Amino acid sequence: MNVTVRGRTQHFRTVTFDAENNSVGLIEQRLLPHEFQIVATKNFRATAAAITDMIVRGAGAIGATAAYGLAQGALAFRGRDLKKFSAHVGMVYQVLKNARPTAVDPVNAMNDVRRKMIAGKTVAERQFLALAAAEEFAREDVRHCEEIGRHGAKLIRNGMKILTHCNAGWLAFVDIGSATAPLYAAQAQGRQFHVFCDETRPRSQGATLTAWELAQQKISHQIIADNAAGHLMQRGEIDLVMVGSDRTLGRTGEVANKIGTYTKAVLAARHKVPFYVAIPLSTIDWNLKRGFDIPIEERSESEVLGAWGIAGNSKFKIQNSKLNQRAYVRVANPTSGARNPGFDVTPAELITGIITPAGIIKPQELWQRRRELGFAGQ
Amino acid sequence: MNVTVRGRTQHFRTVTFDAENNSVGLIEQRLLPHEFQIVATKNFRATAAAITDMIVRGAGAIGATAAYGLAQGALAFRGRDLKKFSAHVGMVYQVLKNARPTAVDPVNAMNDVRRKMIAGKTVAERQFLALAAAEEFAREDVRHCEEIGRHGAKLIRNGMKILTHCNAGWLAFVDIGSATAPLYAAQAQGRQFHVFCDETRPRSQGATLTAWELAQQKISHQIIADNAAGHLMQRGEIDLVMVGSDRTLGRTGEVANKIGTYTKAVLAARHKVPFYVAIPLSTIDWNLKRGFDIPIEERSESEVLGAWGIAGNSKFKIQNSKLNQRAYVRVANPTSGARNPGFDVTPAELITGIITPAGIIKPQELWQRRRELGFAGQ
Repeated sequence: MNVTVRGRTQHFRTVTFDAENNSVGLIEQRLLPHEFQIVATKNFRATAAAITDMIVRGAGAIGATAAYGLAQGALAFRGRDLKKFSAHVGMVYQVLKNARPTAVDPVNAMNDVRRKMIAGKTVAERQFLALAAAEEFAREDVRHCEEIGRHGAKLIRNGMKILTHCNAGWLAFVDIGSATAPLYAAQAQGRQFHVFCDETRPRSQGATLTAWELAQQKISHQIIADNAAGHLMQRGEIDLVMVGSDRTLGRTGEVANKIGTYTKAVLAARHKVPFYVAIPLSTIDWNLKRGFDIPIEERSESEVLGAWGIAGNSKFKIQNSKLNQRAYVRVANPTSGARNPGFDVTPAELITGIITPAGIIKPQELWQRRRELGFAGQ
Repeated sequence: MNVTVRGRTQHFRTVTFDAENNSVGLIEQRLLPHEFQIVATKNFRATAAAITDMIVRGAGAIGATAAYGLAQGALAFRGRDLKKFSAHVGMVYQVLKNARPTAVDPVNAMNDVRRKMIAGKTVAERQFLALAAAEEFAREDVRHCEEIGRHGAKLIRNGMKILTHCNAGWLAFVDIGSATAPLYAAQAQGRQFHVFCDETRPRSQGATLTAWELAQQKISHQIIADNAAGHLMQRGEIDLVMVGSDRTLGRTGEVANKIGTYTKAVLAARHKVPFYVAIPLSTIDWNLKRGFDIPIEERSESEVLGAWGIAGNSKFKIQNSKLNQRAYVRVANPTSGARNPGFDVTPAELITGIITPAGIIKPQELWQRRRELGFAGQ
């Protein structure tokens, strides 16, 4: 999407590949929203480290990064020995897989690249095919988000007020995003609307990443405390809720997403506010039988007990800012601990529709449409 | 309640009066939870400034502070001229009233003191009666909280997990508190339970004040993000919700309280978790006809866009801490704004019961019991 840096507006993707220098270009997401910077990882180990260190995050974005990282590693191989090449690629695969061991997207993306590259008969052919497959993976990620936008934009009418939670924006994908795609598409069609961004404690991705995205795209928006959405719905100030999902169960239509999503769905149901979940098809889990079995990560107490930010007050200018100028403050009572579940599960009954690249689908109808949505199992 | 300072446990009240030095003693609440300090205000202007600067906050606490401040001002008068004395007291009253112009408790408390002191026939008698009335006001505040505790403790069974929102603890009253009173009473009766404190963004009174109170009282507790309560209820981890109220409508049973209270009530109703509101009778508004008409204060954007805390990580020791060591960090995107409603209104249908000093009452039954609850109108 567009980013304005020092007065100049330019189009960026979260992940790009520089074939000339065999390097991956990444938006340094840890600096956002306070600073915009692109970093280049010069080899596959640096690319893996960027995944581990969360320079890049988000399902689609780390998938594409791993795909490019695998191609980057393959392209760095010197020689013609196919066997040695395969061993090398296997090693690169492992390093990238271990970069974030619980994530499924890097693995799926790299399997896709590996499957396509073995059609090559020589090392050079396989190197070429690896890069082509990675590029295709990234392009497809963008295409799927565009399709989500095309379908979802139909839900947005002039003058609407829309609630979002966390960040399922273009920063989490290669471009455009899932939950943000309908917003960007509706804006491109000339519609006017206002977005309330839940700050999304404890990590505040709504206040930082989503708000930054919307500000860059000049979409009218305000950040609210997670506590405020109920009151705004009660006063008729929210017309639509749009969120993303980390995992959607194909069999039940249940949606796992950032902690607090379930609460917003309960409020939306009470106030008859439509509640939509925007997802790429790759996040559908066709195997798991019930949402209760989705493991809920218990994260660090320090996230709840304090906050990260930049010292000083609002609307300051940042001069020569560096990552280490960010400060953590301890907000909570020093002798108290915290519980910090990272995700929650929203049942299908609370979800008006799932916005997929294949159209808007009732959560209860995912299973009967599983073939068309890419389920390859029995 | 008890506070342990440098290993020594002692009983404190938020507001006390030192007759020998004609000064008011206040817990410096802006330093909490990081530092415990008592400040003495030497004259009524300093006492008014302490209310304005929020050294003391909370309905009962600022009521008692204003009552003591009025007595303090009266006691400082030199001379026997009743007319001059009355003019002086009128001036003191105005200064204390203007300390926090929208608050109703200081005015009610001071009216009570004034009504009682005019029974005196001399300046000296009125000075004596003023102090006696202020002391009685403070004692009654404590007594009412004790009664709330006595009734509310019956709801708490061994092994329960209880959710709280914001701080309606002893720091907001002279002692004991409203929403915390049942917890302290149940603890005194030997019951074991666990409390989840909503951090209560944007001002984090749950993470700071309530957590501090519970830690001092050695009550098992954990802080959670406001987003987490829905998930915990879904997993059966919350048995009871207990909150306070800034204003309860006697005619409808609607409850105005800190932003986010309504959301917790909606979640509790869905999960059939009992939802109780603990209040002193003074917060019942017998006039207003519907909760929609309660003015909802729109507070500063900076509260939502950042956080106050102490630099550094968890469980640090504070050496020679001063108020100015607290730091504000800007969390949010620097070019985004915020909406910040301070309160919300919970309808009677979502409230299991109102815990008052006169017993636990269904919100819909407040009006029919209005005489017994102190309604003096028609």
